[in-house]
Amino acid sequence: MSQRVKIRQVLQDERTNYEVTVKGWVRTFRNNQFIALNDGSTNNNLQVVVNEADMDPATFRRITRGAAISVTGQIIPSLGKGQRVELKTASLEILGDCDAEAYPIQPQKQSLEFMREIAHLRFRTNTFGAVFRIRHSLAFAVHQFFHLKGFVYLHTPIITASDAEGAGEMFRVTTLDMKNPPRNEAGEIDYKEDFFGRSTNLTVSGQLEGELGAMAFGDIYTFGPTFRAENSNTARHLAEFWMIEPEMAFYELKDNMDLAEEFIKYVIKFALDNNREDLEFLTQRLADEEKQKPQAERSEMGLIEKLEFVLNNEFERITYTEAIDILRNSKPNKNKKFTYPIDAWGADLQSEHERFLVEKHFKKPVILTDYPAAIKSFYMKQNDDGKTVRAMDILFPGIGEIVGGSQREENYDKLVARMNELNIPVEELYWYLDTRRFGTAPHAGFGLGFERLVLFVTGMTNIRDVIPFPRTPKSAEF
Amino acid sequence: MSQRVKIRQVLQDERTNYEVTVKGWVRTFRNNQFIALNDGSTNNNLQVVVNEADMDPATFRRITRGAAISVTGQIIPSLGKGQRVELKTASLEILGDCDAEAYPIQPQKQSLEFMREIAHLRFRTNTFGAVFRIRHSLAFAVHQFFHLKGFVYLHTPIITASDAEGAGEMFRVTTLDMKNPPRNEAGEIDYKEDFFGRSTNLTVSGQLEGELGAMAFGDIYTFGPTFRAENSNTARHLAEFWMIEPEMAFYELKDNMDLAEEFIKYVIKFALDNNREDLEFLTQRLADEEKQKPQAERSEMGLIEKLEFVLNNEFERITYTEAIDILRNSKPNKNKKFTYPIDAWGADLQSEHERFLVEKHFKKPVILTDYPAAIKSFYMKQNDDGKTVRAMDILFPGIGEIVGGSQREENYDKLVARMNELNIPVEELYWYLDTRRFGTAPHAGFGLGFERLVLFVTGMTNIRDVIPFPRTPKSAEF
Repeated sequence: MSQRVKIRQVLQDERTNYEVTVKGWVRTFRNNQFIALNDGSTNNNLQVVVNEADMDPATFRRITRGAAISVTGQIIPSLGKGQRVELKTASLEILGDCDAEAYPIQPQKQSLEFMREIAHLRFRTNTFGAVFRIRHSLAFAVHQFFHLKGFVYLHTPIITASDAEGAGEMFRVTTLDMKNPPRNEAGEIDYKEDFFGRSTNLTVSGQLEGELGAMAFGDIYTFGPTFRAENSNTARHLAEFWMIEPEMAFYELKDNMDLAEEFIKYVIKFALDNNREDLEFLTQRLADEEKQKPQAERSEMGLIEKLEFVLNNEFERITYTEAIDILRNSKPNKNKKFTYPIDAWGADLQSEHERFLVEKHFKKPVILTDYPAAIKSFYMKQNDDGKTVRAMDILFPGIGEIVGGSQREENYDKLVARMNELNIPVEELYWYLDTRRFGTAPHAGFGLGFERLVLFVTGMTNIRDVIPFPRTPKSAEF
Repeated sequence: MSQRVKIRQVLQDERTNYEVTVKGWVRTFRNNQFIALNDGSTNNNLQVVVNEADMDPATFRRITRGAAISVTGQIIPSLGKGQRVELKTASLEILGDCDAEAYPIQPQKQSLEFMREIAHLRFRTNTFGAVFRIRHSLAFAVHQFFHLKGFVYLHTPIITASDAEGAGEMFRVTTLDMKNPPRNEAGEIDYKEDFFGRSTNLTVSGQLEGELGAMAFGDIYTFGPTFRAENSNTARHLAEFWMIEPEMAFYELKDNMDLAEEFIKYVIKFALDNNREDLEFLTQRLADEEKQKPQAERSEMGLIEKLEFVLNNEFERITYTEAIDILRNSKPNKNKKFTYPIDAWGADLQSEHERFLVEKHFKKPVILTDYPAAIKSFYMKQNDDGKTVRAMDILFPGIGEIVGGSQREENYDKLVARMNELNIPVEELYWYLDTRRFGTAPHAGFGLGFERLVLFVTGMTNIRDVIPFPRTPKSAEF
């Protein structure tokens, strides 16, 4: 038997008339003759041609949709349409049977909702094969981008006792007996008895620890899971998601924006260069979906076109104050079409406002900067105007906020004053404040929600379809 | 002001007599003249030469150990020993002061134990700078190795309702009110009211979900945090650690061993090629440490020598049965030096036995295969002998088990029979068993504890010193 090769390699190989062994799963079996074989290395199938007359009948009958097989034979030019080469079977072995009737994946179109119920099998479909190969490429591109720039990948902790950032509701991590937890004299739960000797949670962000790394290595990034215990059952929220958080010493806000824009373009280009077939499949898929919609709701651009548009255009950079002016004078605001009308400076921007700016007004990604301090986090650098901070949010069409970042307040006194204003416990964060006591320096960073990036690049619309096993309220299957 | 460049780049640049701006932290300030400046991009410092007479006295006084500064000047050939070039200061700005007296990092040698107490600052030392830059390189090499082989990086879930693998004690994840949790009619905690509508934990392994990916993509790997709620206060255990788990369809045990050996050698070579200076520093550090030990306990090889030895030698591959024979007839067994004497086939190997095989008998990494089924997990492929399974453990000198893996039982009936023997709930793992119902195929995989790899490559001896912020019983600082 010749050595097994992957189907991606066979399809890329320009040779014909050589022997190979391939192993994979039967996607379809047509006319008792043509097997479409897929091994997951590419969305494209290899056409395997069998001749019933040459085969053991018992084996032949076991060639069913979903079965795992091993085939050895010659790669020859294909006479049929739709493929350049095909495999002429010399020997075929059934590795694993599949009862095609019972197999949950059926040849006709099945809904994404149903696919979520069989998430353990959905990787075997064209759509999810493409989505998760692209997810892989984006993840690799993240690491490669930062590695080539000399950033240190820092594994910030997942379990944390820090609850100071206030980024969201948290999950408790405990080994205490829930039925009968230890209590102290005051009747409160005694977390001194818990595994870590204190109350602990799942992290909502690695930023604060990331800053510790930046103040030693200069440039660091994190890429790990983060958690929100928010009861949000939407197409944009997960309880467990992956986040990328670079943090850079000696960066100011503009450097931060430049890096974020370069970064996003790099990873999108990587997918375009490495996942062309998957993206072409998803472009077609999205076009088919769009046909179901009324004309007015359809996207102006196809998926690949949209990705190339982002690559080839500079992100619009405006301040919050400029954005408020645009929104206040906008048609939907004047015609009272916004659910939250924009009256005055200081309003927090809602999804409808972000969408207007990105999708209607500028028609491209927008970086909003210098937000009111009151609606942003304590650690952001205070501007001299006394009311705004050096924040930046990147807004993407169809996605909304994909990046949130800021220059950090490096001045110890200003930072402590702000923490006191917000009742953030200064003592608990002594370690964070130490960076401002010992050799502080200007620095900045941002966070990118990885699944939102995957949504954008794949054209999928529900975030549960771009993470292998989504965790959402009342659901932790598989 | 010229553009800021990183010190690594300055030191690699062969030119002299050009202007640069560098930013970093003062490591030492000698003779009121020579600043050793470090920006984290390399362990090596740039010598910055200042002339007190040219400087503002107030600024000059603020050049202290730990301070962050920005310096612009000419890179010129150095007349002093120990460096090829130095920076002749034209202008110097203090970015952040540091009270050198109060600064916890002092110039004299400080213990690793103390460094753990100031883990938020320890990245700023030579030892931890080197360790975490190497950790970064190893992590990147992991991704690059698998990417180049066409593996899909699969983010398996961190929060899981599956508690079936039995790999260890687990942490509960909950949003229930600990003081007054909801109870059902029987008085039990009502986890239906919990965030996910069921009882959930932190994952101990992504393997089972990884197998789902392998049976669609062919080759996948995970690289994420895993958790053990074990009360083990040792130099080898963490409650939170990072694990790499590749899983490959159509692989048998030998393929699995070949891949694991190639993988380990690839990432070690990557560190040797990319972190030479850090490794030289750690080699010297280890040599100094060894001098404190009695002659008999010292390593025969230096750190870099040991890494090159691993690269240049094939791992020894023997079966468990062969290992038992060797151990039974070994001097320490006959002389009753083992705490757990080896009498009979079937005994679980202890650390002392593994060390004997690796460090005394073979003197190189060893792959042990075909363990008794009784001491291994339910999912391992059963051999025809009816008593062993196709497991493999890779044992490393000084580390012990660094990899554990196996070919998986792909036969539905055999797998279910084994689960029933071990009282593993078959219904709960229906999704796992579906891979054996629908197109099952031979497959295999392994898990590598990332921190153990970092320990081996850096020559550090306590696992708390190779993860940024260790989580251990009674400790979750920072």
